[in-house]
Amino acid sequence: MMNVISDKVVSRLSQYRRLLSQLNQQEIKHVFSHRMAEEMGVTATQVRRDLMVLGFSGSPTKGYHVEDLRVKITQFLDGHERQLACICGIGNLGRAVMGYFSGRGVSVDVCAAFDVDPAKVGRAIVGRRCYHIDELESVCKELKLSVGIISTPADTAQSVAEKMIQADIKGILNFAPVVLKLPSDIYVQNMDVSLALETVAFFASQKRQS
Amino acid sequence: MMNVISDKVVSRLSQYRRLLSQLNQQEIKHVFSHRMAEEMGVTATQVRRDLMVLGFSGSPTKGYHVEDLRVKITQFLDGHERQLACICGIGNLGRAVMGYFSGRGVSVDVCAAFDVDPAKVGRAIVGRRCYHIDELESVCKELKLSVGIISTPADTAQSVAEKMIQADIKGILNFAPVVLKLPSDIYVQNMDVSLALETVAFFASQKRQS
Repeated sequence: MMNVISDKVVSRLSQYRRLLSQLNQQEIKHVFSHRMAEEMGVTATQVRRDLMVLGFSGSPTKGYHVEDLRVKITQFLDGHERQLACICGIGNLGRAVMGYFSGRGVSVDVCAAFDVDPAKVGRAIVGRRCYHIDELESVCKELKLSVGIISTPADTAQSVAEKMIQADIKGILNFAPVVLKLPSDIYVQNMDVSLALETVAFFASQKRQS
Repeated sequence: MMNVISDKVVSRLSQYRRLLSQLNQQEIKHVFSHRMAEEMGVTATQVRRDLMVLGFSGSPTKGYHVEDLRVKITQFLDGHERQLACICGIGNLGRAVMGYFSGRGVSVDVCAAFDVDPAKVGRAIVGRRCYHIDELESVCKELKLSVGIISTPADTAQSVAEKMIQADIKGILNFAPVVLKLPSDIYVQNMDVSLALETVAFFASQKRQS
């Protein structure tokens, strides 16, 4: 089952966990699937189906136990060890992405940064040490990093991704506006901001005209 | 047909256009669907099917005419007028997003910024005037903006989205880590960076163990 779970389910589980943490802070002990569904913009059936993947079910009268469910999702998503990530390309977007994760309780630590700019290499940037990109393989292997974030310009993204794979990185979050060509055993998620904006603009224009 | 086109097709058309612009710069006149498919990581059948949506077909011997196809896609995606966008929340991520679009040839202009910080309001930030969020409705209506980008903290995103809708905005690109609850006639695309990173980490961990 672990091998066929879709990235959409994983993404929703991550969202449920965030919601459960919020409920926990509000000292809410139990929650029904329809309440979670409403908060997430999905159906209650979807929520129940996703949580069944974990083998977790709620009480018909009280719903799900918030904290137990949060712990269960965390065990499922994070496994036994916290994943460590590096980020390559420390321009504005790279810095923003690094800042974005500081203190957010995301279950991934971004613990090393890489760039080629001599003004950045060897310094701490947003609290992480910045190394030269040539050190990627040795640093990633030493720190046992498994996740890479690419926020370089488009024309260097492919070569950076290949360096990451050399360094045993298995999953890549790619912000560069380019399609990476990588072996099928590497998991890649693209966050192409300009494509997303163009898509939004297209539908906004259609809705204006209708 | 215009009403049933999926956001995936629109996103791919936007990607084809980017590729065609690159080919154009390299003075390549014709391109076959399988070449485009390879660059984009999709199948050639997919490329031909997408371009058929435009009523555009290639020559069996020469492939697609690069510049004609680029123009055709641009007409389809941008329609008669360029869409204008605003961005709300000018922290690190907001600035990075604004910088990201500068000079990239994206078919959307981000032409106004909004924040509540007195140190930002009234100044130019990354080349755009920053207004107070209370001016959102009047500025958006005056400039006829149709697209909104939200890069505020999670707890203000919903109220900002509602202000945008009041201001006749029809499409929203949401970077805030929260599910917006909006009328169904508003097109929303979520770019939830931490969810994406957690999803990548999950699959990276699985691939390590396998």
